[in-house]
Amino acid sequence: MGAEIYSVGTELLLGQIIDTNAAFLAQRLSQIGIDCFHKTTVGDNPRRLAEALRISLSRAGLIISTGGLGPTEDDITAAGVAEALGTDLVLDEPSAEAIVRTVLQRGFPLLPSHRKQAFIPRGSRALPNSVGTAPGFLIEKDNRAIIALPGPPAEMQPMFEESVVPYLRALPWRAGIIKSRVLRFMGIGESMLEEKLKDLITAQTNPTIAPLASHGEVKIRVTARAADEAQAVSLIAPVEAEIRKRAGGFLVGVDEEEIQATVGRLLRDRGLKLALAESCTGGLITHRLTNIPGASDYLLAGLVCYDNSVKVALLGVKQETLDAQGAVSREVALEMAAGVRKITGAAIGISTTGIAGPGGGTAAKPVGLVYVAVSGAQQEVCEEYRFRGDRELIKLQAANAALNLLRRMLEGQIK
Amino acid sequence: MGAEIYSVGTELLLGQIIDTNAAFLAQRLSQIGIDCFHKTTVGDNPRRLAEALRISLSRAGLIISTGGLGPTEDDITAAGVAEALGTDLVLDEPSAEAIVRTVLQRGFPLLPSHRKQAFIPRGSRALPNSVGTAPGFLIEKDNRAIIALPGPPAEMQPMFEESVVPYLRALPWRAGIIKSRVLRFMGIGESMLEEKLKDLITAQTNPTIAPLASHGEVKIRVTARAADEAQAVSLIAPVEAEIRKRAGGFLVGVDEEEIQATVGRLLRDRGLKLALAESCTGGLITHRLTNIPGASDYLLAGLVCYDNSVKVALLGVKQETLDAQGAVSREVALEMAAGVRKITGAAIGISTTGIAGPGGGTAAKPVGLVYVAVSGAQQEVCEEYRFRGDRELIKLQAANAALNLLRRMLEGQIK
Repeated sequence: MGAEIYSVGTELLLGQIIDTNAAFLAQRLSQIGIDCFHKTTVGDNPRRLAEALRISLSRAGLIISTGGLGPTEDDITAAGVAEALGTDLVLDEPSAEAIVRTVLQRGFPLLPSHRKQAFIPRGSRALPNSVGTAPGFLIEKDNRAIIALPGPPAEMQPMFEESVVPYLRALPWRAGIIKSRVLRFMGIGESMLEEKLKDLITAQTNPTIAPLASHGEVKIRVTARAADEAQAVSLIAPVEAEIRKRAGGFLVGVDEEEIQATVGRLLRDRGLKLALAESCTGGLITHRLTNIPGASDYLLAGLVCYDNSVKVALLGVKQETLDAQGAVSREVALEMAAGVRKITGAAIGISTTGIAGPGGGTAAKPVGLVYVAVSGAQQEVCEEYRFRGDRELIKLQAANAALNLLRRMLEGQIK
Repeated sequence: MGAEIYSVGTELLLGQIIDTNAAFLAQRLSQIGIDCFHKTTVGDNPRRLAEALRISLSRAGLIISTGGLGPTEDDITAAGVAEALGTDLVLDEPSAEAIVRTVLQRGFPLLPSHRKQAFIPRGSRALPNSVGTAPGFLIEKDNRAIIALPGPPAEMQPMFEESVVPYLRALPWRAGIIKSRVLRFMGIGESMLEEKLKDLITAQTNPTIAPLASHGEVKIRVTARAADEAQAVSLIAPVEAEIRKRAGGFLVGVDEEEIQATVGRLLRDRGLKLALAESCTGGLITHRLTNIPGASDYLLAGLVCYDNSVKVALLGVKQETLDAQGAVSREVALEMAAGVRKITGAAIGISTTGIAGPGGGTAAKPVGLVYVAVSGAQQEVCEEYRFRGDRELIKLQAANAALNLLRRMLEGQIK
């Protein structure tokens, strides 16, 4: 047995809105311990909904839909469910009365279409809507259940929590809870990280270990099934410890903690002030650092020196270096980092210079070539990277690389 | 005949990520004139994928999937498609070579798992990946087609545009098209803009007119159904002209053109160089401007002067002004804008100073108070705003307000 999530609405099939309801339901179901094996989206067509539901009823024990419960002709979920189950729609009197009350209370004129929302499949139980007018409904047949919820998240989510969660918790085939912990890594590719963890990934069934890569960051998601939260935590802890033992040097954050938060924490802990001289990243690193509350504790300034004249005038980069090496070079990156440290009085200066494209590349210095330098009181380091992708992606990867270089320096990984 | 969109990934069934790929594909299919009747999501389970595909092949002419093409054991799309079609996987030599090239170019060690990505269903054609390593594939059978694309949007979208769109345009069962044009407005609320366009919105059926508001920007989407592109354009044009007549002064961009692109275009057209002194926006404005290719034509520098000492030392803000008025004040905003203009030699300087929160607010200067100043050769202007929301939202709204103030100045709207 398992659940299947339905989203009903032609606007979803046209891509006019992104389906956040399905993600919400999926997450809540996994937290409650209900396995979900399929998600299905259909348009405002009762026959097609009924056909899809008949297929789903043959493979799922529970179907939860959102959308299509409103007052308009396009709202066809109740009709589709009734057709799939071979029944018809009947007026639910308490829902009809609640709708009249709500509409009049808001000072809207009462229209025939309002009443339409109170028609639900025969044999179903109405689920009250504490926010809007359309009730949801729940119907059981042949050891299966279909639950229909309204589309607006502000109505759907309270109805789910109030009326559906208690029902789900009582389902006999509930599997216990699912809890995830996400470990974030940088400076290591997905394949290489997986290689380091291969035996763990292969051997582990609970918790499972799954990698997910995006633009310079690889996330390892450790997911435990357990009877309760405490058991899940104790299942995850030793696996996390082992992963940290093998790849801890690449770890940049946990769960929602992005690398800029980690770097901010390290700077604060060490009482160090930072200044940035960004060229190709164009302010992105400073923007990300300043997204963290309290960034003013350790961030003095970020200078985006886009034009070479500004690199000379403000940062003190030597014109000879620019002429001899070009702006995109190891030497200029180092002078920028040292320069911004000097003019701001920061303990650490960090710089980026590169070619974000799409123009400006040459055979010797192609689009994606980026130098990142960090300058501290004791240490000075510069790394060269070659990134791929469009302009925004190159900026993103360069920013990640710069933050990761800074993290490694702060953690004493650079000798 | 119609299309069906597949999303493959257990992380989607667990609600760990929101499925933006399905919305992207749905939108592009409707623009191209391919009807889509179902979306399906399955997890990393080849048998379940194959079972779902068999059902879909009985009702759809085209199936487009995203996800599950990577190097790991969990990437099962090719295996599932092969099983559904009763075939096996074969190594695509050109893809294998491309993967080796890409991996080595990036300086990663070559692993067996990299090669796994080059195995595609027998009889399929590989679709090259211009960004990452995993190729997509396209396979036709019994008048049906299955197209598999990688999951990362940055890889999927270029592959779709380069390899899939030409194939779709040649499909004989393409229907009429749906075309949207989005007009973007700032400096006017959703209700006020809707009031100006009320009679148009009510009267129009083709094209339809729909407003959508988010964080200081209101988008008006004009959507036409038509036999072809030219007819859609001629349906939209008079409606757009009327909307521009009524609210053109607030228009900041069209379709994907965000305000930073519009501002960049205005600066280039007028031959003006810009410099920024950001405080509360923390580099976000400079980041957004440098996302636009060719920004170096008009952007000299952006200084994020987070610490007051840096405002004095680098921008020449007077210590007396800081002491008397505080950093978040009209006077400091004006000195920052004038200062950055002076030290960089730019034609226009723009500044932001404010309280992004969550800390740092007082009764007199609450979180959300922001000053934006623009300084030019002839004009100097400062505006005060009071925004609501969390830290990132206040930064976003302040950046939008600053860019819109600059746009209005460049368009001669400020007298």
